[in-house]
Amino acid sequence: MNISFCCTNTPPEPWLVGLRAALPGAQVLVWQPGDAPADVAVVWMPPQAFWDAQPRLRAIFNIGAGVDALMAQRLPRGARIVRLDDAGMAVQMAEYVCHAVIAYFREWAAIDHDIRAGIWRAREPEARADWPVGVMGLGVLGERVARALQTFEFPVNGWSLSPKAIEGVRGFVGAEALPDFLAQTRVLVNLLPLTPATENILNRDTLSRLRPGAFVINVARGRHLVDEDLLALLASGHVAGATLDVCRTEPLPSDHPFWRHPQIRLTPHTSARTLVVDTIAQITRKIAAVERGEAVVGEVNAQRGY
Amino acid sequence: MNISFCCTNTPPEPWLVGLRAALPGAQVLVWQPGDAPADVAVVWMPPQAFWDAQPRLRAIFNIGAGVDALMAQRLPRGARIVRLDDAGMAVQMAEYVCHAVIAYFREWAAIDHDIRAGIWRAREPEARADWPVGVMGLGVLGERVARALQTFEFPVNGWSLSPKAIEGVRGFVGAEALPDFLAQTRVLVNLLPLTPATENILNRDTLSRLRPGAFVINVARGRHLVDEDLLALLASGHVAGATLDVCRTEPLPSDHPFWRHPQIRLTPHTSARTLVVDTIAQITRKIAAVERGEAVVGEVNAQRGY
Repeated sequence: MNISFCCTNTPPEPWLVGLRAALPGAQVLVWQPGDAPADVAVVWMPPQAFWDAQPRLRAIFNIGAGVDALMAQRLPRGARIVRLDDAGMAVQMAEYVCHAVIAYFREWAAIDHDIRAGIWRAREPEARADWPVGVMGLGVLGERVARALQTFEFPVNGWSLSPKAIEGVRGFVGAEALPDFLAQTRVLVNLLPLTPATENILNRDTLSRLRPGAFVINVARGRHLVDEDLLALLASGHVAGATLDVCRTEPLPSDHPFWRHPQIRLTPHTSARTLVVDTIAQITRKIAAVERGEAVVGEVNAQRGY
Repeated sequence: MNISFCCTNTPPEPWLVGLRAALPGAQVLVWQPGDAPADVAVVWMPPQAFWDAQPRLRAIFNIGAGVDALMAQRLPRGARIVRLDDAGMAVQMAEYVCHAVIAYFREWAAIDHDIRAGIWRAREPEARADWPVGVMGLGVLGERVARALQTFEFPVNGWSLSPKAIEGVRGFVGAEALPDFLAQTRVLVNLLPLTPATENILNRDTLSRLRPGAFVINVARGRHLVDEDLLALLASGHVAGATLDVCRTEPLPSDHPFWRHPQIRLTPHTSARTLVVDTIAQITRKIAAVERGEAVVGEVNAQRGY
């Protein structure tokens, strides 16, 4: 079996070492123009030229959870497309989101500000009932985040396109339930896949429906959010703050107002990093399953887009 | 029944309203010198003069979890002493500690620093196996914290004076196990009761036994920590940072080096605030149990000191 590795912004050495060790019968190479066509591709944002040189791929493994970049390319016909399924990302996402929610609920920025000013002032706790967290997208990552938030007794609601039953989470399904879901949300967490149906879903209309003084945490894709609409709602005070791990263009251009906005906490697409060892273990298991013609978790439905 | 309320730094109105509503047969008054002796006291750091005027108390309810201040006073003989048992504090403590641990593990301060400098730089994740969290004190609060940390897959060890079985937590018991416990700890969380046996327990000897680059989170009492020993270990680099919610003197004196130390994150004794409604519900339940001569959770063993 020939495996071609073509991952942008990813040092290839640990992947080659790990894949060769796990699959001693396979030839694993970093793709270069002119290479013979491969049987299996391991990719992250490859150039279109890569796909155009792959007429006989049986399977494509994306080393991230989101396949929106792939879906915008011309892919070889007949290849099964498999995205990363947790592989250590879900716990990172739970960690990132819980940290951000707690920081807002406990007013940690205001406490830090007091301390820098030499002021020792305790704040009265707010009622958790006034802080429902709404998680958009209840896939592997969204479900883990929704469960983790319950550790801290926040009311948790979830919105998804298809019904999902998660213990302790009140579910809202489909477009018609979105306004009701938003109206109950004090902290909005976006973990949706990026598809034509979800692009720009965080906009002036939807964000205006959140509870006054709401917070927005975007850990999915920058193109879910209409930047200027968020800025307008922060200016009006309807949205009190945002934690953004993703941007429409990454790295964020240096003149973008998100860099220094006092109510925006920015992180460099770091909420859930791909873990090499866990990911290789998952991919090698799935390669074997695909070779046996079996179904695998995380197989992308190209029609649906995720 | 006469209930005397004597709580320093506590606006009495919501307590009077709540206690009177819950116990319509009782007379509930804010203590003033010259008042007739009461049957039950509800206290937080009362003056010694209060105790000297209470010859016939049947029960003392402390509206916090720590009774170290009470134990240093001359209390009326024969009164049962009851401390707060959770009453909404445990979830706050879990929240505070998880926020602090995640901030260290994910290098949130360094990311914030990068972003302020206009730098978009992701960091490679560290292995959770290298981040064992050690919780000192496995009472109601410590146990809740230990459980919450497991949500994020940190290895969790616990140290306590008596054996405690908590699922997923490796237990270390008693003084002889302390060096081994410390040697395995990357993040130390102190939730011990303050007694003569635990005063100054966080000192140069114990902190030196932590893993190099360790972090210290003190959410118990300031007198557990020898301030100058922490400062020395921060200066040497053996301890990388500390999150301190409590100090030897509160508010912290304005000339204390903790105020502006770059590796110390200070909060104003706010990790777990007493919640009026939850606490009144608990105290009124326990008053009824004490009147019936029953045992109650949180009864203090004066010999043991907590």
